[in-house]
Amino acid sequence: MSDAFTVFDILRRANELFPDSEIRFGEHRQSFHRTYERVLQLSSALSEIGIGRGTVFGVADWNTPRFVELFYAAAETGAVIYPVNIRLPPEQIAHTIRSAGVEWLFLSSDFLPLAKSLPSPEKVVALDPDPDFPRTYDALLAGSRGPAPEVSVRGSDPYSILFTSGTTGLPKAVRYTHEKVLHGALSIAYQLGFWDTPAKLGSGDVIFPFIPFYHLWAWGSVFHAPYLGARYVLGGRFDPARAVRTIAEEKVTWVNAIPTMIQMLLAVSSGTELEGLKALVGGMTIPSRLARAMTDAGIHFSTIYGGTDMLATSISILPTGIEMRDPADYLRSTTHAVPFAEVKIVRPDGAVAATGEMGELCLRAPWLPGEYYQDPEKTASAYVDGWFHTGDYAFVTAEGGIRVVDRVKDVIKSGGEWIPSSLVESIISEVPGVESAAVLGAPDEKWGERPVAAVQPRRGATVAEGEIRARLDRAVHEGKIQRWWVPEKVTFVDELPLTSTAKVNKAALRRRLFEKPSPDPGR
Amino acid sequence: MSDAFTVFDILRRANELFPDSEIRFGEHRQSFHRTYERVLQLSSALSEIGIGRGTVFGVADWNTPRFVELFYAAAETGAVIYPVNIRLPPEQIAHTIRSAGVEWLFLSSDFLPLAKSLPSPEKVVALDPDPDFPRTYDALLAGSRGPAPEVSVRGSDPYSILFTSGTTGLPKAVRYTHEKVLHGALSIAYQLGFWDTPAKLGSGDVIFPFIPFYHLWAWGSVFHAPYLGARYVLGGRFDPARAVRTIAEEKVTWVNAIPTMIQMLLAVSSGTELEGLKALVGGMTIPSRLARAMTDAGIHFSTIYGGTDMLATSISILPTGIEMRDPADYLRSTTHAVPFAEVKIVRPDGAVAATGEMGELCLRAPWLPGEYYQDPEKTASAYVDGWFHTGDYAFVTAEGGIRVVDRVKDVIKSGGEWIPSSLVESIISEVPGVESAAVLGAPDEKWGERPVAAVQPRRGATVAEGEIRARLDRAVHEGKIQRWWVPEKVTFVDELPLTSTAKVNKAALRRRLFEKPSPDPGR
Repeated sequence: MSDAFTVFDILRRANELFPDSEIRFGEHRQSFHRTYERVLQLSSALSEIGIGRGTVFGVADWNTPRFVELFYAAAETGAVIYPVNIRLPPEQIAHTIRSAGVEWLFLSSDFLPLAKSLPSPEKVVALDPDPDFPRTYDALLAGSRGPAPEVSVRGSDPYSILFTSGTTGLPKAVRYTHEKVLHGALSIAYQLGFWDTPAKLGSGDVIFPFIPFYHLWAWGSVFHAPYLGARYVLGGRFDPARAVRTIAEEKVTWVNAIPTMIQMLLAVSSGTELEGLKALVGGMTIPSRLARAMTDAGIHFSTIYGGTDMLATSISILPTGIEMRDPADYLRSTTHAVPFAEVKIVRPDGAVAATGEMGELCLRAPWLPGEYYQDPEKTASAYVDGWFHTGDYAFVTAEGGIRVVDRVKDVIKSGGEWIPSSLVESIISEVPGVESAAVLGAPDEKWGERPVAAVQPRRGATVAEGEIRARLDRAVHEGKIQRWWVPEKVTFVDELPLTSTAKVNKAALRRRLFEKPSPDPGR
Repeated sequence: MSDAFTVFDILRRANELFPDSEIRFGEHRQSFHRTYERVLQLSSALSEIGIGRGTVFGVADWNTPRFVELFYAAAETGAVIYPVNIRLPPEQIAHTIRSAGVEWLFLSSDFLPLAKSLPSPEKVVALDPDPDFPRTYDALLAGSRGPAPEVSVRGSDPYSILFTSGTTGLPKAVRYTHEKVLHGALSIAYQLGFWDTPAKLGSGDVIFPFIPFYHLWAWGSVFHAPYLGARYVLGGRFDPARAVRTIAEEKVTWVNAIPTMIQMLLAVSSGTELEGLKALVGGMTIPSRLARAMTDAGIHFSTIYGGTDMLATSISILPTGIEMRDPADYLRSTTHAVPFAEVKIVRPDGAVAATGEMGELCLRAPWLPGEYYQDPEKTASAYVDGWFHTGDYAFVTAEGGIRVVDRVKDVIKSGGEWIPSSLVESIISEVPGVESAAVLGAPDEKWGERPVAAVQPRRGATVAEGEIRARLDRAVHEGKIQRWWVPEKVTFVDELPLTSTAKVNKAALRRRLFEKPSPDPGR
């Protein structure tokens, strides 16, 4: 009976209780009632072409209403949806399509070339009309011949496959059941709905996800909006100038975004359009300069910590009874476990860390997939004694906050002690003219590793090493970092290499900075 | 991994994030941090006397902090808690203790006689010191010798046994797992937290349950308060005068209650103490007069519909876009499905009813127990094709509201048509001087059944049958009831028989009114 905890129920209830709430996409308006009806029609059409319980289909599209329909039609028919991570390099996308066992692909015009990754290339539905692809989404829907056969979908049935975008190696798959998707996605809504947090979320909000659907179903917002009966504004491909206009025109109150997107938004915003906007920000560390810039622009932000293989783990709430000397800095760096996420910090020696002590963040939660899909090796290294090892280096503060300081593999081991690179990067980023900075461990005979910094100045700006050293010295005096954490060397680069999710690709940077150039085989 | 959805996590998180929030009981204050520590100590003590995974223990007590501790210690140790329904007649309580397989009993002084229901009478822990019972709660706690052995409790483990208080026959047991308790209890918090509803609930509220713990864990409030980090005020045995004082002294913002309790509260309240109070009211139909009285007193109430064997199904929210001519009447009579409760109305002929059409309310939800404990016969009659048949007669309104009009067995069948007795009762209750009214189907040769009314005037008041008839006539003219629903006969009684949950005991009333008195065997 807990088997009645299934995704489609969200749209069914929205149709009953909030039928007039709308999805908006440009000029297009589509009520939840209309969406519900179209999804039933689509479910019927899917079953007519053989998509049903257990069939895996992929969708490559930007954030559109038809993508929402496909999410709920998958839920209704018992199919498994893979929202294709379209930011991966093409050969990695092809790998994900093969390894997820995708049978059908729904492709918007930008992504039609992916069709050739399919074992049966005719199993493509073009989301936009295209002469080369006779089967289109609109025709499929229009040709539906009646109600779909009733499928008894259970909470324990698989619902969605996602891929992590690891900075090394091929993307790894995780598969979530209906109940795990609901537990994970709704925990975000609960944390934002019940406790005092800047990105407070309720049924009266107008939700506009910047996060694309392939990132954890737009961080769960595809479920939050109909769950709450809230208006859901979709923007297609993220475009900062258009996003600012949409926020004003649609009276958007709530967005989710990675820091880079907010940075882009601030860069194109001319005035007060963003004042009062609530933003859930995460996916990478929020630089302290950006945190202040958001505050200055009147954006109320909360930080979310999580990932494709663990869903939402923690979101900042405003603790009562503690003094926040620098609220923006507190909020950017501190998150709090969402309901039913149990966190423990494990020291390098395997013992559980005390409050304030650093170690690897480990997690238990009802939504954890429990494995990497068809990857027992990776599963065995990540799940130990029922705890998921996140690979993140963190500590817990006195008032129960979680501070993630680094990826464990990015932590610099120097003289038997650990240096969290992100703290040093954050200080360097505060120097005027610095666009971004990466701190890595360079091999060192005496200490094992010593920190070095790679700094990308803003376009047109010049930054002197002396300014960076002065700022680091000050941070040492202020007690923010240790003296021996200060990088030995500062290298200026035109552009730091990025991963598909706009994080600094440290593996590539490490190769560039530390590996001896191999002799050119062409010579 | 969904197995990590367990009850104890609520207190664990409260200890981390809301350690200073308090349980208050008279002069006693106990923070969630202290409660967490005491529960760990108690868990250890329980395991030392052999209470562990799967052990069933019963607790007979009013609403007290130690009862809260026992709820969470059961969760932590994997034991199963039966909060004894102390309003049942003694021989029925003894039956529940036997049929739940209770091994240990925790008894406050009022309930020590229950000890003799146990197979091993020494397995009693006296919650208050008593010379006849050497094992006391305080001594048990104080004697705990260290941390409890770690028990890996799973979401699918049984957590709590409850008994329905049926108006006929023996109480029936239902057993809930951790995940079902959480799904069911938290759905109440979600409905009250996210949507616009008069009994809105949030982390800033001060929660004071009038509902005793044996009623669905005080309608879930034992979980809501630490989940939200909200202050939790307990009042022991319900006493209306003391409750009014406590509301004022503790600045209570939120209560739950059956209508009778609110009626008692209003009777002893002298002024404005209840103004602004939020109340979740249910367990029986709210008379329209009481709904108006609550509104007049400034109480914001929402109605909850549910039961021991189905948990919370629906709670009134304020729909947007519809005109409520009489808000108090709308709220008392109309509820809306909580998230993941799927409702369908089944007509007497077995077809699904259309909007507005009456039939039996059937339910699917993640928290349904799926069976009556060790009662395959009752299970088979209640669960048909995966749907729970509630035995309630209801219809769905145009805006998605659920109106429960009667118990199916109380519906009067007259001339092949159904008369919902509660609608008629509600009209009679509006007549000045009427305390309460019951409408029953009297056997009738021509029509099968015809309605008759039993009316209890308020103490000291006299009511003329003519006034009642005039009010019923007016209701017919207003289109509220049909002409042929008007009772054939009105009988005045000093006191209507009540069930243990303060509902009119229609079975007993039926016997009193319609059965020929049997010859007294003593004569």
